[in-house]
Order: sequence, then structure tokens, then C-alpha cells
Amino acid sequence: MASKYTIGVDFGTLSGRAVLVNAITGEEIADSVYEYPHGVMDTALPDGTKLGVDFALQHPQDYLDVLSHTIPAVLEKSGVNADDVIGVGADFTACTILPVKRDGTPLCFLDEYKSEPNAYVKLWKHHAAQDKANKLNEIAEKRGENWLKNYGGKISSEWAIPKIWQVLDESPEIYEAADRFIEAADWIIWQLCGKETRNSCTAGYKAIWNKKTGYPSKEFFAALDPRLENVVEEKLGTVITPLGERAGFISPEAAKLTGLNTKTAVAIGNVDAHVCLPAVGIDGPAKLLAIMGTSTCHIVMGEEEKQVPGMCGVVADGVMPGFYGYEAGQSCVGDHFAWFIENCLPAPYYEEAKAQGKNIHAYLREKAEKLKPGESGLVALDWWNGNRSVLVDVDLSGMMLGMTLQTKPEEIYRALIEATAYGTREIIENYRRNGVPVDEFYASGGISQKDPMTMQIYADVLNMPIKIAGSVQGPALGSAIFASVAAGKDVGGHANIYEAARQMGKIKDTVYYPCAENAAVYDELFREYSILHDYFGRGTNDVMKRLKNIKKKQSN
Amino acid sequence: MASKYTIGVDFGTLSGRAVLVNAITGEEIADSVYEYPHGVMDTALPDGTKLGVDFALQHPQDYLDVLSHTIPAVLEKSGVNADDVIGVGADFTACTILPVKRDGTPLCFLDEYKSEPNAYVKLWKHHAAQDKANKLNEIAEKRGENWLKNYGGKISSEWAIPKIWQVLDESPEIYEAADRFIEAADWIIWQLCGKETRNSCTAGYKAIWNKKTGYPSKEFFAALDPRLENVVEEKLGTVITPLGERAGFISPEAAKLTGLNTKTAVAIGNVDAHVCLPAVGIDGPAKLLAIMGTSTCHIVMGEEEKQVPGMCGVVADGVMPGFYGYEAGQSCVGDHFAWFIENCLPAPYYEEAKAQGKNIHAYLREKAEKLKPGESGLVALDWWNGNRSVLVDVDLSGMMLGMTLQTKPEEIYRALIEATAYGTREIIENYRRNGVPVDEFYASGGISQKDPMTMQIYADVLNMPIKIAGSVQGPALGSAIFASVAAGKDVGGHANIYEAARQMGKIKDTVYYPCAENAAVYDELFREYSILHDYFGRGTNDVMKRLKNIKKKQSN
Repeated sequence: MASKYTIGVDFGTLSGRAVLVNAITGEEIADSVYEYPHGVMDTALPDGTKLGVDFALQHPQDYLDVLSHTIPAVLEKSGVNADDVIGVGADFTACTILPVKRDGTPLCFLDEYKSEPNAYVKLWKHHAAQDKANKLNEIAEKRGENWLKNYGGKISSEWAIPKIWQVLDESPEIYEAADRFIEAADWIIWQLCGKETRNSCTAGYKAIWNKKTGYPSKEFFAALDPRLENVVEEKLGTVITPLGERAGFISPEAAKLTGLNTKTAVAIGNVDAHVCLPAVGIDGPAKLLAIMGTSTCHIVMGEEEKQVPGMCGVVADGVMPGFYGYEAGQSCVGDHFAWFIENCLPAPYYEEAKAQGKNIHAYLREKAEKLKPGESGLVALDWWNGNRSVLVDVDLSGMMLGMTLQTKPEEIYRALIEATAYGTREIIENYRRNGVPVDEFYASGGISQKDPMTMQIYADVLNMPIKIAGSVQGPALGSAIFASVAAGKDVGGHANIYEAARQMGKIKDTVYYPCAENAAVYDELFREYSILHDYFGRGTNDVMKRLKNIKKKQSN
Repeated sequence: MASKYTIGVDFGTLSGRAVLVNAITGEEIADSVYEYPHGVMDTALPDGTKLGVDFALQHPQDYLDVLSHTIPAVLEKSGVNADDVIGVGADFTACTILPVKRDGTPLCFLDEYKSEPNAYVKLWKHHAAQDKANKLNEIAEKRGENWLKNYGGKISSEWAIPKIWQVLDESPEIYEAADRFIEAADWIIWQLCGKETRNSCTAGYKAIWNKKTGYPSKEFFAALDPRLENVVEEKLGTVITPLGERAGFISPEAAKLTGLNTKTAVAIGNVDAHVCLPAVGIDGPAKLLAIMGTSTCHIVMGEEEKQVPGMCGVVADGVMPGFYGYEAGQSCVGDHFAWFIENCLPAPYYEEAKAQGKNIHAYLREKAEKLKPGESGLVALDWWNGNRSVLVDVDLSGMMLGMTLQTKPEEIYRALIEATAYGTREIIENYRRNGVPVDEFYASGGISQKDPMTMQIYADVLNMPIKIAGSVQGPALGSAIFASVAAGKDVGGHANIYEAARQMGKIKDTVYYPCAENAAVYDELFREYSILHDYFGRGTNDVMKRLKNIKKKQSN
């Protein structure tokens, strides 16, 4: 049999990327990127309609354009015949959700709704439903809703129900006109195979669905708004498909759009973070993947369902079928470093970097790299954007101490990096304390690829070896791996996701091993971090919240 | 009677300055500055002899050169006849101390000792006697020495006994050859009037002398080192003269050096900070003067002797005769702002300031000035150089919290300014709690003259009006005021220092009044500062010390 191939398509915040890989080995043959023509719409719609504060919308036509541009492109670049492409998979940012008609047509495609912001895709970072999330949490807590504990005690304004509620509240006619609200991850699969499916990952992490107990009760939804009582039956769907399943085959329309043929299997939709685990070869529990960029997402599978305080969610089949997928997060990682470079790096450093013909980042890193753990005397709390896990508190803020008149910028920079590593260690120790083993640490995302100093600091702080993703397009590769499973062994793919992950997933040869001497110092420093973490984060001294209240008053 | 005049000479760290004033009104007629040719010697002696770590020496010839240059200069500039100069006074940095022969000749003037660092003047900021200070404090505490409480529980390495002990320990032959160790303040008076005197201010604040109980006991000194048993009788002097007295009259040698005549009275020596109180018109208790520069010194007089924890010292006649002079300090004030500008101010700010044709400080201040109290959400502990009062702990370090990704440089800058204001408020509240009233607040020093934003913040934080020194040469004016008292009413001066201060001291017309609205917000913020101050500063969480220990280990 000739080699067979699969295609994974990763839909990011600003662009979509397809990668064509060998369906057995995962070898990447060709890739193609397409930037969304509409990007993120946060001030106005294409027709000029102004958007409210904290809106972040997208245009679903952009997603279709990704399919019609990138899939033909990878076919052409690779020279692979469409007949040899046995599967296609896709992953998306989440919760990125849109209202559609029964046939899948987005409401914003219809003339009558094209000037209506609530008819468009609400991107993951659409934050205009915060008041809905607040009310939802208040009501859920009052009612003692059990499922709340599966989400660290709080539903985010970024998730599905607050966003749907916002549509109902602001534009009841759109809510009425929408036959379905659907994650873009599932919508794009619908466009590929002509059939509506809902994946266990977004349903579980973003729409409060639980494999055993289903969605929250009608009573709960009615308590939010009587018109929401039947939202699940009327607007969502009760059939949830585990990841790793096949959604269907390329539809004739999709075949026309993409150049694929109708024998190509289509995998169930997935989320860009969660799909990365098989891409690094993770095939089972206790292997944590940190996807490190502006923020970090920590995903690990477990064999039992545990309620871990402060995580983002636990979902059966949420990452791979048969396991509980746990997700935690740090809301500010690379963002700390970017903030520092923008706001704190003094002019002489730029001049000296220039004089030495060096990039400012490289120059700064060179200085920070020379420091030994603890040599700066600094310790920081990495809460410049609140704390997602394990404190789940957006009202926390940053802290640094140990500064003297001799403190240098590179010391502050390194202290911020170390703080994010301590934050990751809090998350890991929290998982372990609550019965979710974490035995191995993998990293993917921009920082893992570009910043060896940071990765070494993490290895020393965590006192664990760190394996690095072998592909820079982790999500797309992950989707291609799921595509191989959707196609199945008979046509040249894999029998299951575990086998596929082992054979198609990749890590780099370089592993960051902890240095025992550094790890011992970081143990001491982490103890200090933890004391401060609990003092400021668990209510002993709520100074950060009181300062935020004063700030709010004074900013008016 | 024709107008009479006095001259005050202020010896600073890098230069000396004379000012000639009207002996009744304090009107400043002329001034002259002379920079020390040898400056601060911290790496080598003039002959190339290398200095140890933390040495900071001066050359006494520089002080004589100040007299021979600046006094003739102010006589010439003003056109005042030497016969009409009825008094001269001088103030000095302290403890700035030197070993001399019985006739006042500095040992370093003698050929045999000119390559010997310990034969030179040890400047106030000579820090090489830290181990001696540590041992002294340990022994004093073990012995339960009562006087320790008058110094906030700790003798500084900058003070007289540790410095003298260092000479003995490192260069016993210099200790042996020295007939006297004398404060430069008293030495310069000796050079002017030919007579050794010792003023109550330096004796009390720097040499552990107490009006009622004298110096520490022989037993104590013997416990330090048996050879120090008789240091007081052998090397210091037991006759201490209160401030406001006359030391004598210009000697024939000094007349030759300065162009003054031998009828001119010479005031008892004084310290540059303490001499500033009459210069702003302070004539009695409960009026606090803050001398604000790189660091801040807070001096207030009281009618009773109280032991105030965390102050630098309480000395009878230490500021004006008849009152107890209390001194407290913040070891890092302007230094915070300088650190920030050097290490944290990003390149775009320099570019924008340049584009707008503005000085970077002015540009930054303009931005910081627009912020409302509490608007940044930041609070800091002003401990970048430890805490002098009220915690007396050099091992504390800086802290800041409340940072978010939106935090701007000007917010950090303003938070540092506010932190120093909170530190001052801690000192004032500590005085009050311990029975030393503080009813009025005066400010002198560079910051008081140049930085209206900072002064307004202080007024709002302290919720007190702030009066600003009317002369930019406060110490020299203060010395000229004491000179008028030394001359006396009969020859055209003043009868006493209270009257002289009232008539010759000056404040500006501009008074900074607190804004009630801001003061209310700062009350809230100060409460947060105080909680953190006590949490980190009083032993609840000694993280700063533990970090410093780790830092020391890791810096080797």
C-alpha cells in the first residue's frame, strides 16, 4: 500500500494553519497558513456597526476561507494525491461560539442579521459577558450546584453559557432566530462532513456538560432567565461524541471547497490546547503538557475523577477517550515578560544592545542567564493578570520583593520568569495533593521553542526533566493525529489515539534536566513564594482586592 | 550702629559653602562654594595606597582650604568689612572623625603617617567598621546597657566608637599616636578659635554621650577591647558644650587664613542636619523638620526625655539648649527615585521626552502628577536601602504590589514617592505614640525645593500642612544663626537661639496644604502600608532576611 496521509487544520486567533502529515509516522510533509481577512473584530463590524466594550468577534467566512486556501495548498505543495489523504481533523480556539440556522448557516451570513453584533462568532476572548458570568456564579453557588466544583468553583465569562445568555439578553430576536449555538470547533467539522456533532472537550470544559450527569438542570437555567429553561434541548445538543471518534466523511460541498474527496474521514472537533497532547506523544495519565505562550495551559490526564480546587475543569474523555482530562492555567506568563520589556527596560540597555549588535531580548537574556538562583534576592508573585489556577481570582495583582538600590533590570526580568515557574509548581503540587498524579512534564508553545533559559529555570524549579514538543505546529499535528484515528487502521491510519500518539507524536532530542544544586536553592525560594502566595491569595491579607477597589473608585 | 553680619560655613560631603548674612535679619548677602580637591577617597590615598572595601576617607587640608577660599570670597563679594563680622559658625557631616595630636594636627599631616589610611578623616559614610558595630551591639545588649534604648536599640557602624575601634584594631600604632579623636565639626572650630571643644550634638548622637550619665562605663569599653578601657579620658573629652555657646574668638592663625579679625566670635560646632532647624525658624518643641534628599533625616525637639523605639537618638541640648533633640531617619528617599530612573525607565519615555523638548524628570513628573491617589492600585515598602526608622533594620528590602499588565512607569514612580511619604508618617505616628508631640511639619533639602509634586503628596499623606525652608543653603544659614548667638546681643547679634531662629530663620510663602479628599484616600492606603510594614518588618514573615541570606550564599 502507498503511504497514506492526514491533514490537521488548526484555527488560531488570527489565522488558520493546515499541515499534511504521514498517517503512520506523523512526518510533516507540507503546511500552509491563511490569515483571517477580518481578524478579530473588536471595534466595528464590516459594515461599520460599532461594537460594545470588551467585544471580540470573528467572521465565520474566514474559517471557510482557511479550508479553501490551506488544504489545496498543502496538497499542491506536497504533491500528495487527494485519494491518499485518509483523514482530516480540526481544532479551534474555545469557547468560540456562534448562532446558526438548522442547516448550519451562520446567522451573520443572512442579510437581515449582518449588522447585528450578536449574530457573529464570539471569540474566546470576548469579555462582554462578564456580568452574566458573575450572575451565573452567584446563582449556581446559592443553589449549591454540584458541578461548580468541577470548574474550580467558577464559570468564566469566556465560556458558552454566559455568551449565549448575553445574546438572549441583548438581542432576543437573534436568540430566537438561532436554531443552534455551536462551538466553532464543531461548526467547522459540520462544514467538512455535513453533519452536526458536538465534541466532549468543548462540551465538558466550556458548556458545563458532564458525561455522567449531563448539562445543568432546567431549574438552574430557568433561574438564570426563564427563557433559558430549555436552552439545552432547543439550542445545544445532548449527543456528545468523545474525542477520537469519526464525525463522518468529507461532504460533496466540502470536497469542492477543499479538493479532498468524499472517502476522507473527518475527526470529531477539538480544542487547540487539548489536541496538543498526542502531538508530543502523550498517550496516558500523569504526563502533564504545559502549553506556554502569553498565558499557559496545563493539561494532564487521570484515571479517576477528582475535584481539584482551583483547576479550570475536569472532563471525562476531555483529552483522550477513557481518561479524565484535567485543565489548569496561568493567565499571565509571556505577558509578564512583554510587560517588563515594554514598561521597565531602561534606555541604556537598548543602547548597549545596539552597540553590541544584539537584539534587545537576546542581550537581556544573556545578562539574566548569568545569574544564579537566589542571587538577585528577589521573589515575585506572577499575578499581573490575576491568578487562574489554583486561586481562581482575577482580582489578585502582582507583587515583587527583595529590591535594593543595586537591583538590576535583568534581575527583575529573571524574577518574573521564576515567578511563573513557581506558579506552575503550585499547580502541579495542587494536582498531586488532590490525587491527580503528575510524573512527567512536557512543554509546547512559543516559549518552549524559543527560550532555553526559561525552560532550564522551569526544570530547576519543578525539579523535573522537561521534554519539548518536537513540532512547532503542535495543534495542527495533533489534529492530523486524530484524523489518522478517525480514518482507522484499515485504510492506513491508526487503530486508536494511544497508538497514534506514540507513533506520530514528537519531542525534541533536547531535554532540560534539573540541576540538583539549583533545584535545592529553588526549593527554598519556592517555600517563600508559597508563603506569600497563601498570605496574599487565600484571604489572610486581602490588600490586593482592597487596592483594586480603591483604584476603581479613583479611576472614575 | 552699622549693620553687623555673621558667617556660616557648611561642610558637606563634596564641598564646603560659606554664607554671609545680616546678623539680625538673616538676610543672605553673599555666598561661596569650594569643592574639596580630594573629594571622597574610597579607592586610594593621594600617594596611591589602596583602600579596603567600604572605606570612605577625606583629607583635612580640604577643610582648611574651604575656610581660606570661601570666607575671603564672601567678604569680598559682599563688600562687608571684617570688623562688622561679629561671629562665625560651622557645621559638618557627622560622624566624620579624625585622629589628631594634642595641638590639633591631624596625624595624616605627619610624614610618617601619610600612607596610613587610618590616619585620615573617616567620612560619615565610611562603612568599613560594620563588624565592630555588630560586636559592639552584641556586647551592649548582653550587658544590658541602658543607653542602647536611646539609640533605637542599635549603634550604627557610621558612628564614632566603631570607627575608633577599627583604627585600634587595624592600626594600633595610629591609635597610640593619636592624642585625640575628634569630630571634624569640632576640629574645624578648633582651627578657627585655637581651642578644643566638643559639641553636645555630635557627642550625644554619635559618641553615645548622655548629659546625665556621661559616656558608657569603662567596663563596657573594656569589654569591647581592654585597650579601649580609658578611651574617653585618653582620646575623647569629658567636657561637652551645649549648642548655642561660644567656643572662643578667631585665633591669630585663623585670622590670617580667613581675613576675619580676632574679635569675631566662634560658635560651638554643629551637625549639618541639626543646624537646619533654626534656619527654618523652628524655636521650640513639636515642630518637626524633615531634611529631604537622597535620604531623609527627621528632627524634632521635645520637652521630656522619652525612649522612642526605632529612632536614631535622643540627646539633651542636641539641637537647641534646654530641649531634647530627637532624630529619626529614612535611609533611602531620593535614592529610590534615582534608582527607578536609572533602572526602570523605558526607552520610549526618553524618546517622547526628547520629542517634546522636555527634561526626562519633568516629563515623568508631569505624567505622575496627573494620577489620583490610589488610582494606580500600587503600594510599596520604601526599603530599597533597608529601614532606619522605626524598624532599624538594614536587612529589610523593597516591596511593591498591585502591578497589572496595565501598570505604567509613572505609576511605579509615584508609588515609590508615596512609599517614602508613608515611611515618614510611620515615624511621626511612632513619635506621637511614644509621647513626643509632632504638631508642625517643615521640610528642607533638595526635594523640598525642587519637587512640588512630592511635597503635595507628603502633605496629603501626612494630612499636615508643610512649610518649606526659605533658604537653599539651610545648614550654612543655620550656622550663621548660631554665630549670631555666639556673638551675643551686645555686639549686634542675638541674645539666644530661640530669638535668633525666629528672626533669622526663613520659610517660603508657599505652604503645601493637604487636600481633604486625597488625605482620606491616603488614610486607607497608609493602613495597607502599615499592615505590610508590620508583616514584613516586625518578624511575622522574615522572607526579606531569608532572601538576603540566600543571596549572600549565591553571590560567592
